[in-house]
Amino acid sequence: RSRVTDVSSGSPVFVVMNFDQEGNVTSFEKKKTELFQELSLQARDLRFQHSTSLIARNNCIILRMESLKAIVTPHSLLVLDFRGLGLEHWLVLELAPQLASQSHSLPFEFRALDAILQHKVNTLRARLNVVEPAMLDTLESLVDPKILSADRSKLHVLLQNSKSLSELETDIKVFKETLLKILDEDEIIEELCLTKWTDPRVFEESSLGIDHAEEMELLLDNYYMQAEELGNKTRELKGLIDDSESVIFINLDSHRNVMMRLSLQLSMGSFSLSLFGLIGVAFGMNLESSFEEDARIFWLVTGFMFLGSGMIWRRLLSFLGRHLEPSVAPLIPQVWKRNLKASDMKTGVR
Amino acid sequence: RSRVTDVSSGSPVFVVMNFDQEGNVTSFEKKKTELFQELSLQARDLRFQHSTSLIARNNCIILRMESLKAIVTPHSLLVLDFRGLGLEHWLVLELAPQLASQSHSLPFEFRALDAILQHKVNTLRARLNVVEPAMLDTLESLVDPKILSADRSKLHVLLQNSKSLSELETDIKVFKETLLKILDEDEIIEELCLTKWTDPRVFEESSLGIDHAEEMELLLDNYYMQAEELGNKTRELKGLIDDSESVIFINLDSHRNVMMRLSLQLSMGSFSLSLFGLIGVAFGMNLESSFEEDARIFWLVTGFMFLGSGMIWRRLLSFLGRHLEPSVAPLIPQVWKRNLKASDMKTGVR
Amino acid sequence: RSRVTDVSSGSPVFVVMNFDQEGNVTSFEKKKTELFQELSLQARDLRFQHSTSLIARNNCIILRMESLKAIVTPHSLLVLDFRGLGLEHWLVLELAPQLASQSHSLPFEFRALDAILQHKVNTLRARLNVVEPAMLDTLESLVDPKILSADRSKLHVLLQNSKSLSELETDIKVFKETLLKILDEDEIIEELCLTKWTDPRVFEESSLGIDHAEEMELLLDNYYMQAEELGNKTRELKGLIDDSESVIFINLDSHRNVMMRLSLQLSMGSFSLSLFGLIGVAFGMNLESSFEEDARIFWLVTGFMFLGSGMIWRRLLSFLGRHLEPSVAPLIPQVWKRNLKASDMKTGVR
Amino acid sequence: RSRVTDVSSGSPVFVVMNFDQEGNVTSFEKKKTELFQELSLQARDLRFQHSTSLIARNNCIILRMESLKAIVTPHSLLVLDFRGLGLEHWLVLELAPQLASQSHSLPFEFRALDAILQHKVNTLRARLNVVEPAMLDTLESLVDPKILSADRSKLHVLLQNSKSLSELETDIKVFKETLLKILDEDEIIEELCLTKWTDPRVFEESSLGIDHAEEMELLLDNYYMQAEELGNKTRELKGLIDDSESVIFINLDSHRNVMMRLSLQLSMGSFSLSLFGLIGVAFGMNLESSFEEDARIFWLVTGFMFLGSGMIWRRLLSFLGRHLEPSVAPLIPQVWKRNLKASDMKTGVR
Amino acid sequence: RSRVTDVSSGSPVFVVMNFDQEGNVTSFEKKKTELFQELSLQARDLRFQHSTSLIARNNCIILRMESLKAIVTPHSLLVLDFRGLGLEHWLVLELAPQLASQSHSLPFEFRALDAILQHKVNTLRARLNVVEPAMLDTLESLVDPKILSADRSKLHVLLQNSKSLSELETDIKVFKETLLKILDEDEIIEELCLTKWTDPRVFEESSLGIDHAEEMELLLDNYYMQAEELGNKTRELKGLIDDSESVIFINLDSHRNVMMRLSLQLSMGSFSLSLFGLIGVAFGMNLESSFEEDARIFWLVTGFMFLGSGMIWRRLLSFLGRHLEPSVAPLIPQVWKRNLKASDMKTGVR
Repeated sequence: RSRVTDVSSGSPVFVVMNFDQEGNVTSFEKKKTELFQELSLQARDLRFQHSTSLIARNNCIILRMESLKAIVTPHSLLVLDFRGLGLEHWLVLELAPQLASQSHSLPFEFRALDAILQHKVNTLRARLNVVEPAMLDTLESLVDPKILSADRSKLHVLLQNSKSLSELETDIKVFKETLLKILDEDEIIEELCLTKWTDPRVFEESSLGIDHAEEMELLLDNYYMQAEELGNKTRELKGLIDDSESVIFINLDSHRNVMMRLSLQLSMGSFSLSLFGLIGVAFGMNLESSFEEDARIFWLVTGFMFLGSGMIWRRLLSFLGRHLEPSVAPLIPQVWKRNLKASDMKTGVR
Repeated sequence: RSRVTDVSSGSPVFVVMNFDQEGNVTSFEKKKTELFQELSLQARDLRFQHSTSLIARNNCIILRMESLKAIVTPHSLLVLDFRGLGLEHWLVLELAPQLASQSHSLPFEFRALDAILQHKVNTLRARLNVVEPAMLDTLESLVDPKILSADRSKLHVLLQNSKSLSELETDIKVFKETLLKILDEDEIIEELCLTKWTDPRVFEESSLGIDHAEEMELLLDNYYMQAEELGNKTRELKGLIDDSESVIFINLDSHRNVMMRLSLQLSMGSFSLSLFGLIGVAFGMNLESSFEEDARIFWLVTGFMFLGSGMIWRRLLSFLGRHLEPSVAPLIPQVWKRNLKASDMKTGVR
Repeated sequence: RSRVTDVSSGSPVFVVMNFDQEGNVTSFEKKKTELFQELSLQARDLRFQHSTSLIARNNCIILRMESLKAIVTPHSLLVLDFRGLGLEHWLVLELAPQLASQSHSLPFEFRALDAILQHKVNTLRARLNVVEPAMLDTLESLVDPKILSADRSKLHVLLQNSKSLSELETDIKVFKETLLKILDEDEIIEELCLTKWTDPRVFEESSLGIDHAEEMELLLDNYYMQAEELGNKTRELKGLIDDSESVIFINLDSHRNVMMRLSLQLSMGSFSLSLFGLIGVAFGMNLESSFEEDARIFWLVTGFMFLGSGMIWRRLLSFLGRHLEPSVAPLIPQVWKRNLKASDMKTGVR
Repeated sequence: RSRVTDVSSGSPVFVVMNFDQEGNVTSFEKKKTELFQELSLQARDLRFQHSTSLIARNNCIILRMESLKAIVTPHSLLVLDFRGLGLEHWLVLELAPQLASQSHSLPFEFRALDAILQHKVNTLRARLNVVEPAMLDTLESLVDPKILSADRSKLHVLLQNSKSLSELETDIKVFKETLLKILDEDEIIEELCLTKWTDPRVFEESSLGIDHAEEMELLLDNYYMQAEELGNKTRELKGLIDDSESVIFINLDSHRNVMMRLSLQLSMGSFSLSLFGLIGVAFGMNLESSFEEDARIFWLVTGFMFLGSGMIWRRLLSFLGRHLEPSVAPLIPQVWKRNLKASDMKTGVR
Repeated sequence: RSRVTDVSSGSPVFVVMNFDQEGNVTSFEKKKTELFQELSLQARDLRFQHSTSLIARNNCIILRMESLKAIVTPHSLLVLDFRGLGLEHWLVLELAPQLASQSHSLPFEFRALDAILQHKVNTLRARLNVVEPAMLDTLESLVDPKILSADRSKLHVLLQNSKSLSELETDIKVFKETLLKILDEDEIIEELCLTKWTDPRVFEESSLGIDHAEEMELLLDNYYMQAEELGNKTRELKGLIDDSESVIFINLDSHRNVMMRLSLQLSMGSFSLSLFGLIGVAFGMNLESSFEEDARIFWLVTGFMFLGSGMIWRRLLSFLGRHLEPSVAPLIPQVWKRNLKASDMKTGVR
């Protein structure tokens, strides 16, 4: 039975890796049509249209976590199209032993779901662990108060990390929403407990006093909260980037102001020298000034030029000092202290 | 039966394109009044006041997706006022075959709704696919660390894309809300399953073991999630614009600081030259200095002028270097590392 | 029967304009106490304390939309205190005919409510239509890349429009919340259908197959969605202002950087001239240099001064060019392209 | 009966002001333990741990609105610890007459609650009325386009007002949440109607046809909406501050750009003078140039120096003019107009 | 009975501190497996995977508040792994007496939970009390209008505090969500009342007229609201940081503008001196100007040079003054006043 948008004629082939309860791993190819007929699923169930999904269909759990597509049946876990995704290592060395571990009293689907969700959260956490230190290093060097101009290659790194962080944030959000959608509806949780419906004997036996649905809720809630913690971390990191950028701007602005004051002080010096240099220029003209013959005049004028420049400069500098310090300042009380009092009083008479 | 705000006298005419189950396409004109009487609808149902709407009325699904206005009946799809909207190509070449495809076991209204929602999501995605690369290209060239001043034509492109992105965001939001409103109310979903109510025989026959309402919910949920994914993308893009703007500002500020330091260094040089040039000006005065006859004095004073300028300049430059590097720096521990420890300790004694 | 906070002794007088079903309009004055006794209302019901409210009380709908205060009874619409609000034109020329129109099968209160809500939405839309083009014009001229400094009168206009937009946003929000509160409670919707309760005969007659409550919900929902669309527009406009401000800042900063580079280049020229001018000053001193008699020396030194200045300037300029272009640039891969690859790989082995 | 965290041995004393139904006011001291035993309350009920609370306990309403702590019984209102809070004026001159007013048909607890909530809202509004004009004045003077540099004392005032506004926003939010918590649970509203439970006779008598719970809901909802209006105002003010800050920055940047262009133009002038002054310096050297004897040469060279400077300056200025106006400008269509068309077309063929 | 992810073979050992109802404190080591078998718990219940959790399992309350892990049974409180966390002081000196206090009529689990939640809230408040004054001090000194450039060590402190504040915000949020999850589900609250289920006799005896579940809800709600108040404080602080940063930027920009105007005024002076100095240079050339012999000419030219410079400078300064004051200013009405009127009129004729 196929569904609405299906127009592909030749049925595609899945490369399947099969994990059973005893820890046996087999790998084979199977036509998509055969696969869903075998599992009594419908075509649309194996379309995996969304990057993250987790649904129960006809005693199967069908899930996709980014590149990992899997079907959990009461007795086996099928991983589809696993090649070329860098998953082989995890599948063979970690997933297989985890599923085969006989120390668990809960049925197979719990072990499978647990392993896959754990892998997903680990993947997300690994991405955060790559981005976070790179980000902190970059910010650390960018907010360095000694730098006069931001290192542009660092800015590029910052931008890349910021983008990665946004993508990670989205993926965490999508993962959380996928779990939340299930946690919000008790029926779906019930459906996820495959053994309860298919294998009453195992169910009876395995679950003395254990409510499968409650166990499933705990399992999902656990990963939901882990994702929430990752989400909180990314949010904090984003906030840190914003704060750091402000500090970078204040730093750059401060440097500029300091340089500008120095520049202004030099301009004042140059102006003083030009002003008094004009006297020298005047006496350098080929015009008769009647002072030409007196040697003392030379020293007098020269001294006047240098001392005058110096004095004017000093006056200009002290003018600058006074100009930049607002005279109203002592009249302004401190913001916070006044405000604290105000907030004490604010509930008072009106 | 007309309704409250209807004051138009002459009933308007719809240009209708009719798709039936067998894939036949006919096109005709019909008076609005005739149309709604034929379908037992009310006048207000065909007013299409909102840019995006999807409602079930009297065994019809009436929907509008921006320019596309359509009525789905159990046996046919009517597209209204389709001319001049650039929809003809899609209507004839894509919609018709899709509706006629007999490979679906689900009734006609599912096929019609699926085709239209798919078209809508494709339209939204196409708009994102136009904006996104243009945006990335523009940002890429704007955050280039080599640029001293932002290319203003690029800024215009950025602003336009940013505006398009906002509009797209709104449209996605409206589309999502339209679907969510239906998904939140099971009754509306039931109403959308037209065949279930009108054609029990077809219903019985087509849906062995299939719950129409659940199929409808899956169909709508699928498009809801696709819209959500588009929405996540636009949100990420918006974040990227913000981050890039910060980087642009830091870049421009950094360039300015570098230029300012160069400028300040040159000013220091000019000042030194002016200061020692004043000696030359002094000796250039037409005043008797008693050194006139000694040739060595010329070289002495000239050398003093040049060397003095150079030395003063060097001292000024090293002063600048020290001035810009805050002496307190070595006392400041690194922000993050100290903080990491602090966060380790923060749960400690208090 | 009066209520808690009522301490006014002399009962105030309302100026009332009365519209009945036949389209007759009468205008009279009535004491507040008389009015609410006549309608069996309580004093507090006519206090109109909130700028926007819509409630059903004892078979009356009492509503206030900013300055418009009205009471809808099953047979008439009373508009209170309508003078001096600029509403007369609308009341007489638009409202009266609309209410009198006999083409509607739905009872009077629907027509009245529809007319008033439509007027409210039109008022909100008109305000947006005033603010939007003014805003776009102002932004258009402010983001003009040619401007070196923002026109300050434009900034004032921008600020005013921004304030108007905020106020409009609040009003739309309040209007939406007022409607939402009703839409969320089915009982209130039922209460708003006055005729259903007061005039069973008219009710029977007018509503063959029409569910009054559903009609009322559709009517309110329609205006809710129109308000939502206006709200989306204002939100987009706000976003546009933010984006434009960023562009304005980048523009101003870019201009500054360009001017700064020009200024720096000129400073380099001046410095070169000063440096080599010092030679001229040296030779201008009244000191014996032993070159005085040779005419070629004059040209040699003069040429050296000019050529030397020029050469030093060129070297400084090329130094500036190299200094501003970071040498690390070629090593930095493009942000987005690298990132795209990264996102492809990010789901891989870890 | 005491509760968990109570470890204080000596029972504290409350200073109580008692208002009864007849308008009598008495003031006395009472031990905390006596007070809660008399009212059959528990110790924890009189702990007033949160700044804003409103609860019903054993036929008493216990409320705290910042500094005002009160207990409403069916027959009296007790205000606790009223001294030193600036409340005396309000208690004696406003609250007492309001409570004694016999014009109300609703029981005492309504009058008491109404008076206290009204006082609370008035207090919040008074705070807004203090902050708002101060804020507007400050912003008005800060966005003045004539100012070259922001008045720093104004910035302090802005910061203080901004802080007060944040605190006010929090207080309004807390007040709204306190009311909302009650409005969301019908049982609590019922409990607040003390007379209904304690005094059936008065209840019967006073409330012909009046539903006490509904009256209570209306009363609380009224103050909720007033608080909401205040909250909207503060939000608008916050937005205005943000917008104004952007305008201040654009203003300051614009001034800087204008000054920078002037500075650049002057630098160009100075450069021109230096360049051609070098000729003068050259001829001022004590070197033989063979032109010394010709008087016309003096005028020629002098004229060349001045005219040359002027001409070079003019060329530099026109170069600057061209440089700052981007040549690509005419090629850029206007953002909005092009965009409008684009949005018209965006629903077209794809 | 162990659960899914448990693969550790050797069971770990807990260091346990046991508080009983009589105030006796014992400390011992116990294997994890023994511990959960003794309490009839499951292995996963003692895994403490999340930083903050509070659950009821099989008549035990298992909670973790950051570093504090505890199990509350109806008769004792077990604190696990308490060493090296700085908790000893609190455990011995505060917790023990608090639990032993016999003045409470409510059962043991209430006392234990109250003590632990109180400790948690106190810890959060202590962190805020460390960050807040440090933050205010730093901001106070950074917004000082006299500073020309921000103190960079202060910026580091600001960044650290900002980071601490973000972390605190997250912890408060997590704590609030943990409580809210319980408050939202009445069943969990019931489960937390251990005595009610385990010790009916004590229950009967202790709780004459007291509803345990309601008491538990009050207890949790109390701490929820305290956390909410802390959350409001952190939010206000964050807002204050943002506002302060804006003020810092305006301050720095203002300083820069003031310095730039001074610099421009000096440039004008220098330009004037250069311009008229050129006359002096001209007359200093070794060229015949025919004025050489007249002594008055010297004074005339010298005077012209100085007076001319001065006059040109004055003209330039007044030009600058006019240039920076936009002539359109008087035409612009004040923003707010016009706007106030506009808002009065905005509901008028349209």
